[in-house]
Amino acid sequence: MAIRLDYRDGDFETRFAAFLTTKREVSEDVNATVRAIIEDVRENGDKALAAYSLRFDSLDFAVTPMRVGAEEIEAAYSDTPADLIAALELAAARIEKHHARLLPKDDVYEDEIGVGLGSRWTAIDAVGLYVPGGTASYPSSVLMNAVPAKVAGVPRLVMVVPAKEGAINPIVLAAARIAGVDEIYRIGGAQAVAALAYGTETIEPVAKITGPGNAFVAAAKRQVFGTVGIDMIAGPSEVLVIADGENNPDWLAADLLAQAEHDRGAQSILITDSAELADAVEAAVARQLKTLERSETAEASWRDFGAIILVPDLEKAVPLANRIAAEHLEIATADAESFVPKIRNAGSIFVGRHTPEAIGDYVGGPNHVLPTARSARFSSGLSVLDYMKRSSILRLGPDQLRSLGPAAITLAEAEGLGAHARSVAIRLNPSG
Amino acid sequence: MAIRLDYRDGDFETRFAAFLTTKREVSEDVNATVRAIIEDVRENGDKALAAYSLRFDSLDFAVTPMRVGAEEIEAAYSDTPADLIAALELAAARIEKHHARLLPKDDVYEDEIGVGLGSRWTAIDAVGLYVPGGTASYPSSVLMNAVPAKVAGVPRLVMVVPAKEGAINPIVLAAARIAGVDEIYRIGGAQAVAALAYGTETIEPVAKITGPGNAFVAAAKRQVFGTVGIDMIAGPSEVLVIADGENNPDWLAADLLAQAEHDRGAQSILITDSAELADAVEAAVARQLKTLERSETAEASWRDFGAIILVPDLEKAVPLANRIAAEHLEIATADAESFVPKIRNAGSIFVGRHTPEAIGDYVGGPNHVLPTARSARFSSGLSVLDYMKRSSILRLGPDQLRSLGPAAITLAEAEGLGAHARSVAIRLNPSG
Repeated sequence: MAIRLDYRDGDFETRFAAFLTTKREVSEDVNATVRAIIEDVRENGDKALAAYSLRFDSLDFAVTPMRVGAEEIEAAYSDTPADLIAALELAAARIEKHHARLLPKDDVYEDEIGVGLGSRWTAIDAVGLYVPGGTASYPSSVLMNAVPAKVAGVPRLVMVVPAKEGAINPIVLAAARIAGVDEIYRIGGAQAVAALAYGTETIEPVAKITGPGNAFVAAAKRQVFGTVGIDMIAGPSEVLVIADGENNPDWLAADLLAQAEHDRGAQSILITDSAELADAVEAAVARQLKTLERSETAEASWRDFGAIILVPDLEKAVPLANRIAAEHLEIATADAESFVPKIRNAGSIFVGRHTPEAIGDYVGGPNHVLPTARSARFSSGLSVLDYMKRSSILRLGPDQLRSLGPAAITLAEAEGLGAHARSVAIRLNPSG
Repeated sequence: MAIRLDYRDGDFETRFAAFLTTKREVSEDVNATVRAIIEDVRENGDKALAAYSLRFDSLDFAVTPMRVGAEEIEAAYSDTPADLIAALELAAARIEKHHARLLPKDDVYEDEIGVGLGSRWTAIDAVGLYVPGGTASYPSSVLMNAVPAKVAGVPRLVMVVPAKEGAINPIVLAAARIAGVDEIYRIGGAQAVAALAYGTETIEPVAKITGPGNAFVAAAKRQVFGTVGIDMIAGPSEVLVIADGENNPDWLAADLLAQAEHDRGAQSILITDSAELADAVEAAVARQLKTLERSETAEASWRDFGAIILVPDLEKAVPLANRIAAEHLEIATADAESFVPKIRNAGSIFVGRHTPEAIGDYVGGPNHVLPTARSARFSSGLSVLDYMKRSSILRLGPDQLRSLGPAAITLAEAEGLGAHARSVAIRLNPSG
């Protein structure tokens, strides 16, 4: 049973505020272990990687090479059922098309006094993509990370994936092939992150590392940040559903459970103005849990972090939604479109009764890597921008320097930066 | 004397690679102290802030209020010399105009099968701006951080600045007024960062914190990251000058010293194809150091981290510049424009002999908060994008769900996510 909050209760604000700050993750402190692993890889390169793979993945690089060969990738692609390949290709095409619209445009111009200014966007030279092993190895995540990188124009996209006894989920390899990943290595954990950041004999270093991973991978990404860029560190997933009374409770229950099945720390929240719907959804959740493969996970998530919030009218849901700042926000109301402009904080918004969040996980087009744990208040989902950087450009001639120089000198002198002032003044008075 | 590297030397690659990874900062480990301060502020709010201000700044909030009043800001503005106000206003206007061009555009569209898709940009609700006290308290940095926030549309911009005995540099207050900062508090250090992140009785929490600070501030920003967003943690500044033999050595020496005077860890690099110019610049640096207010800092920086790299021709400078990925790159050559498209990694590019980097520090228009320590390989200067976030939008009707749903089900099932599949299937077969 999820918790219930009622807007009309006297202690609602207190309970809602407490609910907002509920911790859904225990963060293991693996920093010391990770630091040692990174040092080891920096010092011993491939040798260190080989030792870790033997130890953690029962994988001997003398037998199975660290780099996945082209034939193996082709074989995985050929062995993947046709309907799955078609689904991956549909997803990749839609992701590519949507992300291409997010490509920033260079802007080089001259202002009214003839100063040349510019913003020039370039792709990052080389990016590493971490893909988890085992059950968390999602082909859809490969597409969501790799396709935007390729749309951005990243010339070298390197994937790492841990491989127990050398085996990699063939669908992951098929997805990597479809997305255009350039190199794939059978390594994982903090050691893979270290290899991407610092390079080894076999692996050239990259400039940025993206993709999800366990506590060791997350800690390693934090530690190598600065040497390379990293993406956000994602927490457990969450969905907020705003629903009027006219919904099919079974549809909403399925959506809440789709989030809950991800992780025991996932969170599913329903806000509705209908007490009847609230009860019906709660009952539908209980019913659907019985026939769910991942019922244990989903049940724990719904029990520990699920919530149903009753509001007197759906307008009241808007400020609550903006405070929750959910990763995924479903609006299942008759006038769903009219809610959208009022939403300030949400990773992704799913509009109307026929847009289950799961469509966005796979084939919608927008990215499914989204800000969790209320970070939609200050950050955005993954996009081409995460694989690019901008250089600003400034160009003055003698006339422009005469026009702007004196103000720069005034400010530099006020800040006590004499060499700054001189570097301008010396060009204004070449004789001085 | 800076180090000299010659491209034609046999060991150039080895020496250049070592030069690239020179550490220019000793990072103090202040994490434990900072953790305790943050806990204290979370628990004791204003009381904790008052105690720290008394201890570190000899400032008693019972006498001088924590919040800077409107009259004090007006007085600071009025007391600032007119030429300085004019310079600040010129700078603010140019920063505003340039940054407005970087505002991202919403993009809401329907694809060929009728799926509604969108990217909607919104400003962050509340942002905190850290401004250092003492000599590092730069009015220009207030403008560079605050103006883009206001251009982005941030409704609430809160500034914190440590104030020894209550005093704040009046030019900093004048800059804050010009930039439109909404609230100013006389607090600094890790405690100010904690107050911005978690709020106190007096200060409402913000969603993101930007601005430079000392080791304590940097550590505090790292620790509150997740609860709020943060900007990059800037390292010591650097400039790379690519110059042909036709330059006035005094101009280039002034530019190199303008960087070096910032910090003993700053770095100034000259790449040239002219040994004569190299010698002349070296001599000019020595000469100019004698009459520089901050000569001790500049001399140490030039001695410890400065470099002159001789190349056989300037084409060879391009790949070196891309590996250095300098925060500031000056191109002082006859055909400066032609170099720009070849530069992939640089925070800001200054084109031609009449564009000293100091213009960009103050009145150019582009931001002076730029990626340091080679992070221009994967990140960009501060801009309006740092004060905004994007929600993606997806809208399907029954027809679109029929079109895309089966592929989503196929992928969900392949990933073992039964509730994901069900949330789509249940809408396709309402009877099932």
